[in-house]
Amino acid sequence: MERPLILIANDDGINAPGIHVLAGIAQQLGDVYVVAPATAQSGMSSAMTVNTPLRIQEHANSAEPGVRYFSVTGTPVDCIKLAMHHILPRRPDMMLCGINHGSNAGNNLIYSGTMGAVMEACMVGIPAVGFSLMHHSMAADFSRAVPYIEKISRAVIEKGLPEGVCLNVNFPAKVEIEGLKVARSARSHWTEEYREYTDPAGHPFYWLTGKQINEEPDATDTDLYWLGKNYATIVPVTPDQTNTAIIPTIAETICNQQ
Amino acid sequence: MERPLILIANDDGINAPGIHVLAGIAQQLGDVYVVAPATAQSGMSSAMTVNTPLRIQEHANSAEPGVRYFSVTGTPVDCIKLAMHHILPRRPDMMLCGINHGSNAGNNLIYSGTMGAVMEACMVGIPAVGFSLMHHSMAADFSRAVPYIEKISRAVIEKGLPEGVCLNVNFPAKVEIEGLKVARSARSHWTEEYREYTDPAGHPFYWLTGKQINEEPDATDTDLYWLGKNYATIVPVTPDQTNTAIIPTIAETICNQQ
Repeated sequence: MERPLILIANDDGINAPGIHVLAGIAQQLGDVYVVAPATAQSGMSSAMTVNTPLRIQEHANSAEPGVRYFSVTGTPVDCIKLAMHHILPRRPDMMLCGINHGSNAGNNLIYSGTMGAVMEACMVGIPAVGFSLMHHSMAADFSRAVPYIEKISRAVIEKGLPEGVCLNVNFPAKVEIEGLKVARSARSHWTEEYREYTDPAGHPFYWLTGKQINEEPDATDTDLYWLGKNYATIVPVTPDQTNTAIIPTIAETICNQQ
Repeated sequence: MERPLILIANDDGINAPGIHVLAGIAQQLGDVYVVAPATAQSGMSSAMTVNTPLRIQEHANSAEPGVRYFSVTGTPVDCIKLAMHHILPRRPDMMLCGINHGSNAGNNLIYSGTMGAVMEACMVGIPAVGFSLMHHSMAADFSRAVPYIEKISRAVIEKGLPEGVCLNVNFPAKVEIEGLKVARSARSHWTEEYREYTDPAGHPFYWLTGKQINEEPDATDTDLYWLGKNYATIVPVTPDQTNTAIIPTIAETICNQQ
């Protein structure tokens, strides 16, 4: 029987250590194609490159048998699109993303390049999971997350995922992981979002920064609650943001239609 | 009584004609701050600029009283964040985005920079609406859409929107508009996504292209169905992509938790 084909991407770029940890795990489950951005693409959400062309480069890899590495000069979504159209030998059986250096919990989901790639794979019907460690350092220690990633990846490749659903998995950093909880994204926002500087000519410029505020710290069904208690969390995600239930209300209030 | 404050953004950039049409409409309803990307940002979704600093520039505008124009060297989401933190004199009463030169119907929603900005405003509690015309040309004729934009904007500033809900409004181009329908996003995908070229040195490069395919052309509750029949459509949108209903299924199948 043919070994499963597993597509791996990330948003930290082809040189981030986390993607090699993930490739090592995936290698046990099938043949692996890594297709990752040439440069860091954090915060790129589902952005795709419209106004410039893209290049693909294969990178030599003698260290990891069964793993091929490609970089794309674009966003995480570009990586998935080009992998599907021009890189993979056939349709992949699973797509894994990360391991991200940094949290994608709470409202980070909507900005996440990691989850942008995962949702792109999900929208073309491929079971897809994003993995993120709540630690930005490139020297982050992923070892405690590895057994959970193995378990989740194995379950997803064996059982698949419900149609239109992908997974956003986050791990606490620098602690023993207490267990695994399936949760919803905590309502949250970022505060103090910009640091202001003055350039040598006296003009201001701004750099994104800030702190994530959990708006519902006591909600025991949320990812931020359980991550704060040292659990890993799985949030099921559906890319389509249509709010179908509210259609009659909008028709009545905004359009005066009954 | 103080006039309402209306924030306007887009993803085609400060120089796109559509944003001036929208500013002209908003000017009748309140004081207007336009905060738009300095350059075209189509397909940027909810991307935000993490790794480089941003600049803000005010542009002179003697032609439109009550309208101030600012550009930001970043994405549509960056525009909203910087507007809220460093540009607006107070919290805006409404945020309008566009008029986009091109469709944001069907699965375009997730890639749309227009809707990225709208969702960013929605997430901080501001009633927000994105307007798009299904015509990419910078010379597009917005005149038939104007009465609908006036009606929707007036209803939203008077009545607000349900918490966590924003609107994705699309207009057919080059036809008489038959009316207005509240709908859901049609399930759709893009096909033939890249054109392949060869550079002078013989290396390949790729440029995004393609055609949107409606996967459910007969579904009478979708935006693409009604746009095809020359109606304008409103799709209610909720930024949070968590699929709460599927949590028990994922807990059981992936985590073996009952």
